[in-house]
Amino acid sequence: MKTLNIVPFVSVDQMMKIVLGIGVERLLKDMAGYIEADFRRWEAFDKSARVAAHSRDGVIELMPTSDGESYGFKYVNGHPGNTKSGLQTVTAFGVLADVATGYPVLLSEMTLLTALRTAASSAMAAKHLAPKGATTMAMIGNGAQSEFQALAFKAVCGITRLRLYDIDPAATEKCAGNLAGYGFDILKCSSAQEAVEGAEIITTVTADKQCATILTDNMVGVGVHINAIGGDCPGKTELHRDILLRSDIFVEFPAQTRIEGEIQQLPADHPVTELWQVITGTAKGRTSPRQITLFDSVGFAIEDFSALRYIRDHLRPGTYTELDMLADPDTPKDLFGMLLRADNKAPTSA
Amino acid sequence: MKTLNIVPFVSVDQMMKIVLGIGVERLLKDMAGYIEADFRRWEAFDKSARVAAHSRDGVIELMPTSDGESYGFKYVNGHPGNTKSGLQTVTAFGVLADVATGYPVLLSEMTLLTALRTAASSAMAAKHLAPKGATTMAMIGNGAQSEFQALAFKAVCGITRLRLYDIDPAATEKCAGNLAGYGFDILKCSSAQEAVEGAEIITTVTADKQCATILTDNMVGVGVHINAIGGDCPGKTELHRDILLRSDIFVEFPAQTRIEGEIQQLPADHPVTELWQVITGTAKGRTSPRQITLFDSVGFAIEDFSALRYIRDHLRPGTYTELDMLADPDTPKDLFGMLLRADNKAPTSA
Repeated sequence: MKTLNIVPFVSVDQMMKIVLGIGVERLLKDMAGYIEADFRRWEAFDKSARVAAHSRDGVIELMPTSDGESYGFKYVNGHPGNTKSGLQTVTAFGVLADVATGYPVLLSEMTLLTALRTAASSAMAAKHLAPKGATTMAMIGNGAQSEFQALAFKAVCGITRLRLYDIDPAATEKCAGNLAGYGFDILKCSSAQEAVEGAEIITTVTADKQCATILTDNMVGVGVHINAIGGDCPGKTELHRDILLRSDIFVEFPAQTRIEGEIQQLPADHPVTELWQVITGTAKGRTSPRQITLFDSVGFAIEDFSALRYIRDHLRPGTYTELDMLADPDTPKDLFGMLLRADNKAPTSA
Repeated sequence: MKTLNIVPFVSVDQMMKIVLGIGVERLLKDMAGYIEADFRRWEAFDKSARVAAHSRDGVIELMPTSDGESYGFKYVNGHPGNTKSGLQTVTAFGVLADVATGYPVLLSEMTLLTALRTAASSAMAAKHLAPKGATTMAMIGNGAQSEFQALAFKAVCGITRLRLYDIDPAATEKCAGNLAGYGFDILKCSSAQEAVEGAEIITTVTADKQCATILTDNMVGVGVHINAIGGDCPGKTELHRDILLRSDIFVEFPAQTRIEGEIQQLPADHPVTELWQVITGTAKGRTSPRQITLFDSVGFAIEDFSALRYIRDHLRPGTYTELDMLADPDTPKDLFGMLLRADNKAPTSA
């Protein structure tokens, strides 16, 4: 029997090794494939709303899902005040387990992995919704997620021109600097209005925890695809309501997006299309070159599941640590005997 | 700033070191104190039903709770068929986190820890409910949990005589053998009827996943305290219904016990008392020496929280490993830069 009581653990450092070993663009493209494959079998998943514990300073959430063979969950927090003390606003880790035995098969950092899966999901959605042959993307918000978005759209959709804007010019400088050497034609813009000019795809990825208006209606021309990432919790939106009313709106899991997404600004019965149905061909995506498509993305458990599945399939020696996380007594009924025998093996340590 | 991105991890081996270092009886007694303290401030906790993913072979559950300062959750599976392939029926691990930042502060194995907290909880309840001066406990079911129960009742309630019975005589031999040297007067019995004779406390801790009748009404005399541990999910009970009707019933969290406990056999409005109210003095416990008290225990998230809190307070060098589980970029907005700099530090590994 294999050592099923040992759980592979991927640390932040090891996750970076995996990403750099595969190459970030190839990884984003392949991970988009994993996510698309899981969206294609959407109905096989056990889908539930995330379990949230709210407090004055933020929220801690558990996001579980299962396809009947594997079970995955992510622990993720959101604490906007953390950066003041040098901490991350969002940290995350996740577990993949075997449904048949209930045994965990992977424990992984997911701060970096969430950034990767979010970008891969956006690009996968754009592949189905954005105008054909798009090469230029405006990116409003140049923070922690921005470079991952840019590279995913390059790898999956062929984007080669970036128009960057952030209210903090230092963020734009950082983003442009980090992306130098990846072959983009990059323009640093001084307003959101300037950034969207001529862009076929507009990505909004700002972090304000409020109802903001990053894009107003006059800024969005016909035929554009909007990839709205930043609005992802109640009271946090990025787009003016009038844009939503002109767009065909695509979402991950309507029950969650109605609460957390841009469409929290609209009546609960406003028509939206589930992205998985576009992928399986049971619903229409882009039907005309003049149509505005909007991916109102909030992040869903299945995307984390796909990302964990990808990492499990790409574990190599040196990219994980073996954790002795599960008890393995000689006979399953003799847990206490395991303790007794440990006592005989080693002197007490206290 | 401290290295908040490093999470202490307690492996199975390290948990055994902690237990043996402190001594199992002292640990059980002290942990019962932690659990009692948390029951005493019951109303401070965010209590929700566990989040369960059921499948043909078993169940995977997440059990979260929070007291506003710390947040804890346990991952636990239950797969009765696992022992056939040499695996544990139940494995578990858990996390404690800081509510103010959302950062995890402890990751721990919880298979062993759950056995300890279950025994400590039982003994803590019996301290409040069992007849004064009780010295004899019958224990029906001598599997993985039995030795922990015996030692907790010794440490917390002063039990010195054990009357053991299991349908599998090998389990009784194992339990008696493991407990030799702990100062008990042990009698191995050949029936449940024989085991309960003269016992002031009866612990039922069997594992059948069915509605079984481990105790029938005629076996339970006046004045006894019953500690019913084994019935802990829908369709799994141990006691004949008539016993329940003669007993005053005490539970952890009624909403959960109505579904999972012995009282699933009774109407939903059958009166029960919440254990925390006995501890705080707002409800009565044992009021007469002829009364039958029943602790219908199913295990609740707050007990896991207390156990994780106990372990965090007793971490010593050598009893944990530091896991690099949370990303810690130089500037919080520059996650991609962290990846880039890792690339410059080390050659790619693929």
